[in-house]
Amino acid sequence: MNAVGVIVEYNPFHNGHAFHIEEARKTANADVVIAVMSGNFLQRGEPALVSKWKRTEMALKAGVDIVFELPYVFATQQANTFASGAVSILEAAGCHSLCFGSESGSINSFYKTITFLQAHNELYQQKIKYFIEKGNSYPKATSLAYQTLSPDHDLIDLSKPNNILGYQYIKAANAMHAPLKIFTVTRKNANYHDPHFASDTIASATSIRKALFSKDGHPESVRQYVPDSTYNGLLEYKEQYGLFHDWELYWPYLKFRLIQMNPEQLKNIYEVEEGLEYRILSSVLQSESFQQFMEKLKTKRYTWTRLQRTCVHILTNTTKEEMFMKEDKASYLRLLGMTTTGREYLNKYKTDFSLPLISKASATKHSQLLLDIKASRIYAMAAPKSNQKKLLESEFKQPPIIVAK
Amino acid sequence: MNAVGVIVEYNPFHNGHAFHIEEARKTANADVVIAVMSGNFLQRGEPALVSKWKRTEMALKAGVDIVFELPYVFATQQANTFASGAVSILEAAGCHSLCFGSESGSINSFYKTITFLQAHNELYQQKIKYFIEKGNSYPKATSLAYQTLSPDHDLIDLSKPNNILGYQYIKAANAMHAPLKIFTVTRKNANYHDPHFASDTIASATSIRKALFSKDGHPESVRQYVPDSTYNGLLEYKEQYGLFHDWELYWPYLKFRLIQMNPEQLKNIYEVEEGLEYRILSSVLQSESFQQFMEKLKTKRYTWTRLQRTCVHILTNTTKEEMFMKEDKASYLRLLGMTTTGREYLNKYKTDFSLPLISKASATKHSQLLLDIKASRIYAMAAPKSNQKKLLESEFKQPPIIVAK
Repeated sequence: MNAVGVIVEYNPFHNGHAFHIEEARKTANADVVIAVMSGNFLQRGEPALVSKWKRTEMALKAGVDIVFELPYVFATQQANTFASGAVSILEAAGCHSLCFGSESGSINSFYKTITFLQAHNELYQQKIKYFIEKGNSYPKATSLAYQTLSPDHDLIDLSKPNNILGYQYIKAANAMHAPLKIFTVTRKNANYHDPHFASDTIASATSIRKALFSKDGHPESVRQYVPDSTYNGLLEYKEQYGLFHDWELYWPYLKFRLIQMNPEQLKNIYEVEEGLEYRILSSVLQSESFQQFMEKLKTKRYTWTRLQRTCVHILTNTTKEEMFMKEDKASYLRLLGMTTTGREYLNKYKTDFSLPLISKASATKHSQLLLDIKASRIYAMAAPKSNQKKLLESEFKQPPIIVAK
Repeated sequence: MNAVGVIVEYNPFHNGHAFHIEEARKTANADVVIAVMSGNFLQRGEPALVSKWKRTEMALKAGVDIVFELPYVFATQQANTFASGAVSILEAAGCHSLCFGSESGSINSFYKTITFLQAHNELYQQKIKYFIEKGNSYPKATSLAYQTLSPDHDLIDLSKPNNILGYQYIKAANAMHAPLKIFTVTRKNANYHDPHFASDTIASATSIRKALFSKDGHPESVRQYVPDSTYNGLLEYKEQYGLFHDWELYWPYLKFRLIQMNPEQLKNIYEVEEGLEYRILSSVLQSESFQQFMEKLKTKRYTWTRLQRTCVHILTNTTKEEMFMKEDKASYLRLLGMTTTGREYLNKYKTDFSLPLISKASATKHSQLLLDIKASRIYAMAAPKSNQKKLLESEFKQPPIIVAK
């Protein structure tokens, strides 16, 4: 059986994602689609709208065959670390190909860009350094440096978020000599961060979340942009646990934790660098919401998402020591769910996988997994008191989701 | 001017306290009554019903002339450390005498008990060790050891909480050669821990809190047991901040913090000893309230109050390292409030005080005081969101309360 891999967050799964999966399956001529998906905290430094279990179920019902969790240690990271964790999982699970959505849509342009930047590497690095010293964030400096190298129209636009991720996927696959054929499909219609609905059926996950958190906030308002499985999944989650997860629900905990800490303790947290601890501690007492806190914290030096990721690490008490001990690659394949077709694939090939397959968190003690479990428990603390226990315990007891298909 | 010192928590101030102050003033023939009062967290390991500022105001209106804060580093401790911090403050503030309430009521019996235990010290210590090894808590072992020494009826009953405290006050005063004349008055009518009302006008603070937290929970139900100043103060506090503080309001934070921690991190917290970290971490996930958590945690080895104090230290993130660095005595006199008579006393004698007088937290950086400020901010986190800021900021900006009298 031929497997194509996709790297996703599905926050939540929408029609654009369904299109991507179809294209991936067709282009790669694949029998199964394997998704590696961020757990409960995402690359942008946010809690996922609904838990990874619900998001797995939505994905399986809408066309994905197997979902593996991208461990916390990769999921809440900048693009290159995120990419290398995700690619290592797809490779270990025997994928023949990887298909990502991008603004560019041309895989040749990606390869040309990589060759181009390798050829100009010394100058590129100098320019990045120059723009960082000018006070820009790392992603901004990278983008500016790239501009000054005058890439022609055949190269990709590295200021676009999905182009950046795709570029990092290819670099990661090259670095680990992964035997993956890589495709890209043009993303449909909606820009990644677009907060407004832009077409009749395709909308960005950002605009969908925005609609769900607006005053009325019923899933009905996003129904046309998502498959029925997502629509029903959202309704069920809200019914079962009483919330959609949002940073503001974690704000009391973040604030409490920061009030507890002195600058030295805060400095032990991953990504708290360059005196950021003082800025964080002086901002927290004056802020009455997460939004307010972030606005006080924001500087040109750091992107909003970088700061949000730092806040996630404070929330989960993830230290530099813990993160620096981790390896570059995933150390297991955590199975969140599968279709019956996916199960067939796993039964056939799992003995060939280069990483252990984990179906139950309680059965193992990988250090990366302990961090995932902790993150899930922290994630559960946003739920109303009466529903917390269900969410807290699910992480340890939940077997993989199975969907007949 | 002649000053008598009292050591108090006033949680809340009631008619029994008013009686104690009157007696203290009379017995010691004093012009001013100086109270050293626990801050926002108390010796029994509980948040105070209302903030130290409100409790100060209630005390000043009901007969106390000066209130100093007993720093966190002494207030949330077992009796001997609590006593030595408190006595060091009264001595530094120039008190001529100390008057405490006790079940015994006879100061001679206290002195005889101290002499008796010194005479039998070796055997006493052996017996304490023996009873601890049998699995008893330290206070229980002390009480059992004392019993086996067959003290006669002239000696005090060291199983009574106020006798224990009084005994420790005298020992602390002796140890620091404090020139304090010590008196005791018999506590009126209500037993320290009595949860029920036992007389028409005198009730224990425990029974008063119990009534306030009961289903109807209006201060009206305790009106006959407290001075008008307490009754009005309670009404005002509830009106202003929307709560009476109770462990259950801090439970989400405690739980969150414990979920964040691994056993090694938890072991750094003060009073987490002898593998207690494992017991705490295994109890927390199964518990849905503080009460439930404490019931799971409780063993014969530790008293309920000892475990509650440990929880307070977890809540405030107070480490062994921080606590072991502290000295035996207070390093400042933090003035929470004064009557006009109290002010006269301070103006007259403050230059003779053996410790610096602090009227504003923002003006100083004593390490003991930083801990008090942190504890106050954590204390504020129980308030409804809209009132937190007022409470959070008050600690730093609040000048001493002044009451004309």
